[in-house]
Amino acid sequence: MQLTLDRPKLISLAAGFTDNESLPVAEAAEILHDVLKPGRRGQAALQYGSTAGDPRLRERTLKRIEKLDGGSTGYSSDDVIITHGSQQLLYILTEALCDPGDIVLVEDPTYFVYLGILQSHGIRARGVRLTPEGLDIEDLARVLEDLKRKGELGRVKMLYQVPYFQNPTGWTSQFERKTAALELLRKYERAAGHPIYLLEDAAYRELRFAGDDVASALAAPKFRARVLYAGTYSKPFATGARVGFGILPEPVRTAALRIKGNHDFGTANLLQQLLLRALETCKYETHLAEIQRRYRRKARLMTRAIEAHFPSSIVWMHPAGGLYVWATVPQGVTSGVKSKLFRTGLERDVLYVPGELCYADDPARRKPNRDLRISFGGAADADIPVGIARLGSILRKLV
Amino acid sequence: MQLTLDRPKLISLAAGFTDNESLPVAEAAEILHDVLKPGRRGQAALQYGSTAGDPRLRERTLKRIEKLDGGSTGYSSDDVIITHGSQQLLYILTEALCDPGDIVLVEDPTYFVYLGILQSHGIRARGVRLTPEGLDIEDLARVLEDLKRKGELGRVKMLYQVPYFQNPTGWTSQFERKTAALELLRKYERAAGHPIYLLEDAAYRELRFAGDDVASALAAPKFRARVLYAGTYSKPFATGARVGFGILPEPVRTAALRIKGNHDFGTANLLQQLLLRALETCKYETHLAEIQRRYRRKARLMTRAIEAHFPSSIVWMHPAGGLYVWATVPQGVTSGVKSKLFRTGLERDVLYVPGELCYADDPARRKPNRDLRISFGGAADADIPVGIARLGSILRKLV
Repeated sequence: MQLTLDRPKLISLAAGFTDNESLPVAEAAEILHDVLKPGRRGQAALQYGSTAGDPRLRERTLKRIEKLDGGSTGYSSDDVIITHGSQQLLYILTEALCDPGDIVLVEDPTYFVYLGILQSHGIRARGVRLTPEGLDIEDLARVLEDLKRKGELGRVKMLYQVPYFQNPTGWTSQFERKTAALELLRKYERAAGHPIYLLEDAAYRELRFAGDDVASALAAPKFRARVLYAGTYSKPFATGARVGFGILPEPVRTAALRIKGNHDFGTANLLQQLLLRALETCKYETHLAEIQRRYRRKARLMTRAIEAHFPSSIVWMHPAGGLYVWATVPQGVTSGVKSKLFRTGLERDVLYVPGELCYADDPARRKPNRDLRISFGGAADADIPVGIARLGSILRKLV
Repeated sequence: MQLTLDRPKLISLAAGFTDNESLPVAEAAEILHDVLKPGRRGQAALQYGSTAGDPRLRERTLKRIEKLDGGSTGYSSDDVIITHGSQQLLYILTEALCDPGDIVLVEDPTYFVYLGILQSHGIRARGVRLTPEGLDIEDLARVLEDLKRKGELGRVKMLYQVPYFQNPTGWTSQFERKTAALELLRKYERAAGHPIYLLEDAAYRELRFAGDDVASALAAPKFRARVLYAGTYSKPFATGARVGFGILPEPVRTAALRIKGNHDFGTANLLQQLLLRALETCKYETHLAEIQRRYRRKARLMTRAIEAHFPSSIVWMHPAGGLYVWATVPQGVTSGVKSKLFRTGLERDVLYVPGELCYADDPARRKPNRDLRISFGGAADADIPVGIARLGSILRKLV
């Protein structure tokens, strides 16, 4: 971010946020004008709320997710908690479930900020191979078996997944992969001596612009007590109005609520009323459809530019949603912070996220260093083909 | 809070928040209408900001505090960090500085939610006697000496104070008491082997309605590297727009910023723009003056009722700001959750915070159980004398 400020000509294909022009300024103005009418309702929006969040927003949130999941999942709005962005929920759940020295299983590669959360708490991340269809279940079995053999299963508390248009790969996990993972985790619980949860970080779920939604793990009643669902309204609506949410089984919900109370007593009520009213008036849905169209167009701008400018030896997939394309360069070329590709890119004013940042430390293997996370979210339309062309010209020389 | 919802007739003199009618609904509506104008500025308010917070808000914040403290304190706006309420800052600083098993010195009594934060991290609280003029410095010396003798000084990381209209007592610390405490802490740093910080939680500072402000510990340049200042805009303006701030020396600031990034990447930008604009347009100042008048009136309603209805053997002081009166009943009577006073109060629909909740666990002494925190903040004007009269009638029978 600092780099972007210092070098105004830089085309950042690194930032994972939505572009400025997509932000619902008029809608938010209208809603807040309405929310802040004189009287009780306006006052309530500026008053403390409860730690769990506004009951109507929790109710609406549950209904939305149930609708996406094809019907009731047996949860009640009491199971929903509203947070200051879903990032806060990831933090709180990690605090609630893990002690220093514990192990969280993560996708390999995974959301790099989450690796930072783990590291800052002295929690170890163990990577499980990710495929475009979801977690490699055989690899998960191998990892669990390995941990069991080493007597470390007792430290494994959770599997963290970003199963929708994953950050960084853009891949979406099949439903069956999620339930297969849950099945396997359950098998190892006895040896672990405690529950092993699946934390399903669905931050990008609503940013789909092709194909059909995949049900969340909440839709598998068998695993109800093991699924922690993290969602957000920030990315689909407005990143500056940080409202995320969780759907959590007991006793995790109570533990999370206690920590949330210590963090901040509850998410700013004004933001909650903004989102609640956006949902009630269908402004949220209308804006979401607009956002989806917008990202479809930006993704197409990017993939066409990649087709035109990247050497054919570079492996990548068309995204069906989210903000990212994940590209892998051939052996012999590297993409890391110290690589020729990254440094030449910077010299020519184009920035991406080096894939190496997204892999957990693992003494058993060399960290992959041939991937690029390229985002079409934040860059202006006109900059996307220019940035990709610059990267392509560097890549053609290196490959 | 649940109790208040379940029993609508209950008069709560327990809640520590501002009353609904004091909330700046019209002002917030006007500001947000202005902030959310079409174009760049409106977009910026709905976009991610930086983790530290809006630079202009940080600049204004520093200027405000410097003005209160009578001139430049040698800090720059880079030393300021914006948080989701000041509560989040307390949490983050505790995470940044303390490990499980560490010790934080607290006022005896202290803000009970902070005791909860410590407990949830396995950090021990050690109480230091509080007087209406501030910390009892001799007791602080005794406590430090005792910890030194026990070889526990290495675990002491911080002294936590609420030196303005303290929660729960309403007392304000003299400036000299704060510097005397800092002087003493410094003396023990060598034996501790690390810095011992003063965390000055100034949440209620601006809620003064009588007398003159007292300078913060920031105004003592000698201790610059040891003072952590936590302030908030939520209580003086709108509790539902949670914007707090810290002024922090290095290396604490960098550590706090890293944790803040993991919590949420930064406080919702929309809330920051609301407060920034309120400050820029002087709506904040105007509203603050109104709030101060309001609390002066409510405090007077309460103190007059106390004078009329409480037995004279009950010890309390006229508050000069904040939200609380602290009352101590004579020996032989108790005020705790299980006391006759508390339970009879509940039966007669009046609620206060039992003082026992505000004392740190300490095997060396019995926890005081004769205090009541009575708040004039949240209750309606008409309810204040009614609630106090009910308490008074119970007290007259017990004393």
